[in-house]
Amino acid sequence: MNKIMECVPNFSEGCDKEKIEKIVECFRAKENVKLLDYSRDEDHNRLVVTVLGEPEELKNAVIQAVGKAVELIDMNQHRGQHPRMGAVDVVPFIPIKNVTSEDAVALSKEVAQAVAERYNLPVFLYEKSASAPHRENLANIRKGEFEGMAEKIKKEEWKPDFGPAERHSTAGAVAVGARMPLVAYNVNLGTGNLEIAQAIAKKVRFIGGGLRFCRGMGVALEERGITQVSMNLTDYTKTAIYRAHELVRIEANRYGVPIIGAEIVGLVPLEALVDTAAYYLGLENFSLSQVLETKLME
Amino acid sequence: MNKIMECVPNFSEGCDKEKIEKIVECFRAKENVKLLDYSRDEDHNRLVVTVLGEPEELKNAVIQAVGKAVELIDMNQHRGQHPRMGAVDVVPFIPIKNVTSEDAVALSKEVAQAVAERYNLPVFLYEKSASAPHRENLANIRKGEFEGMAEKIKKEEWKPDFGPAERHSTAGAVAVGARMPLVAYNVNLGTGNLEIAQAIAKKVRFIGGGLRFCRGMGVALEERGITQVSMNLTDYTKTAIYRAHELVRIEANRYGVPIIGAEIVGLVPLEALVDTAAYYLGLENFSLSQVLETKLME
Repeated sequence: MNKIMECVPNFSEGCDKEKIEKIVECFRAKENVKLLDYSRDEDHNRLVVTVLGEPEELKNAVIQAVGKAVELIDMNQHRGQHPRMGAVDVVPFIPIKNVTSEDAVALSKEVAQAVAERYNLPVFLYEKSASAPHRENLANIRKGEFEGMAEKIKKEEWKPDFGPAERHSTAGAVAVGARMPLVAYNVNLGTGNLEIAQAIAKKVRFIGGGLRFCRGMGVALEERGITQVSMNLTDYTKTAIYRAHELVRIEANRYGVPIIGAEIVGLVPLEALVDTAAYYLGLENFSLSQVLETKLME
Repeated sequence: MNKIMECVPNFSEGCDKEKIEKIVECFRAKENVKLLDYSRDEDHNRLVVTVLGEPEELKNAVIQAVGKAVELIDMNQHRGQHPRMGAVDVVPFIPIKNVTSEDAVALSKEVAQAVAERYNLPVFLYEKSASAPHRENLANIRKGEFEGMAEKIKKEEWKPDFGPAERHSTAGAVAVGARMPLVAYNVNLGTGNLEIAQAIAKKVRFIGGGLRFCRGMGVALEERGITQVSMNLTDYTKTAIYRAHELVRIEANRYGVPIIGAEIVGLVPLEALVDTAAYYLGLENFSLSQVLETKLME
């Protein structure tokens, strides 16, 4: 695959394995679509699917899966701990390779329009695709959940971006949008003093005046007797791993505290690592296509 | 693909496109085999194929291609600038992902034995697969070329590792072995003084007492008015990119010369870059399988 987009749709069914299998089936054995993972949670009564693909083929598979979920899931019967407003609750698109966040926004809008028309679903665009600031945050859109959406959706400020201004009788409403991949990055400090880790986290993170796409907090690793600045980088193309790392180092210096390690939790896009290596070596004109393994994905 | 081996077989045909296509065809449309590149040179009268694959499937494709070349190429008619001793001149296997250099050695021996038996070819094992120190260097084995091999091969010290101790009448002999991927890595220095670049290169490279898997020389980049330590890292798993980089920095320090950039020429295995990022960040417990794109190759 030359271009790769990721999609992590959330469906409101975590118990009925037969229904789950029918939904997941939409992502199997499709050319240029690769099902990475799916996990269901009975308490949340929710299914989270992670899938990669060429944008066009991925789009078609997602549209098909949305249709299957609308057909199978009746939200009037749905009980679960996780907040939800629809049979398909949220559909984020995430650019991975040779696609931009603008491409992800465009793709999310195509999917939003298609599922609205095809399944008569009200669709809200959110995050980078949002049509207004109060719609960027998913929690804002979803507030009131399926039950409250019957009335909420009739208000002008909550008119859906696509589809009817009326809750779907069984499938509710869906949020579709684009976001960047999240990189979970932790830096270990050579101190057991949690206050120092917290103070550093506050300076490095966005809300404290730090890096724009960085959330962070101080954490004690009690078994090891050390502390950690635990971060989420919400757009690694703009707030690079190495920049967060070096900023933690700079702040730690004033306490005489050394960095003694770091960790990446879960998956990380190749580009984020290549960018890191390129920074520290000072690489000129390096291209992702020089990574031998990428030849296998073309 | 979970395990990935690379093979770069060299064939003694650089002119006849029909024959070339028949050889290259053996690497097309095979499951778990990916033809990356092939290039022919008329002056050298030589074809170089680059192919990746799961070890077993790659092996079968290579054996088939060797048979095709033996069938099509008559070395008695071959003229070209590049030294050569056979229709298939040399077949290196290179470990790329989830395979070790020992795996590559084992695979090379399987291929050596198979092509010896199937096509009655004399086969020399070379580089990491060599059965004696004087056979490690390909140039040593090939000395005398196709024409000289008729007599050379009868000597005890040049008895082939597999197959008859007799030159194949049309296909000559072949060298099969394992080597590591080569990383071409250059570090740019903030000086136009070539002597400094040369002095640094001499200290960093193996023959000067430097890093074991590093070859290097000083080069002038005249257009930019700077110089460069140009290196080949012949086993990046043992002589890491960052180690070569930092050693250049240490030697440059004594001349007060800064590193002002670096470049990787051509392809580089993902692992070599991840290793670099992991070193500079101090990553703990990072696994290649955390790179999102690797999920696409499974």
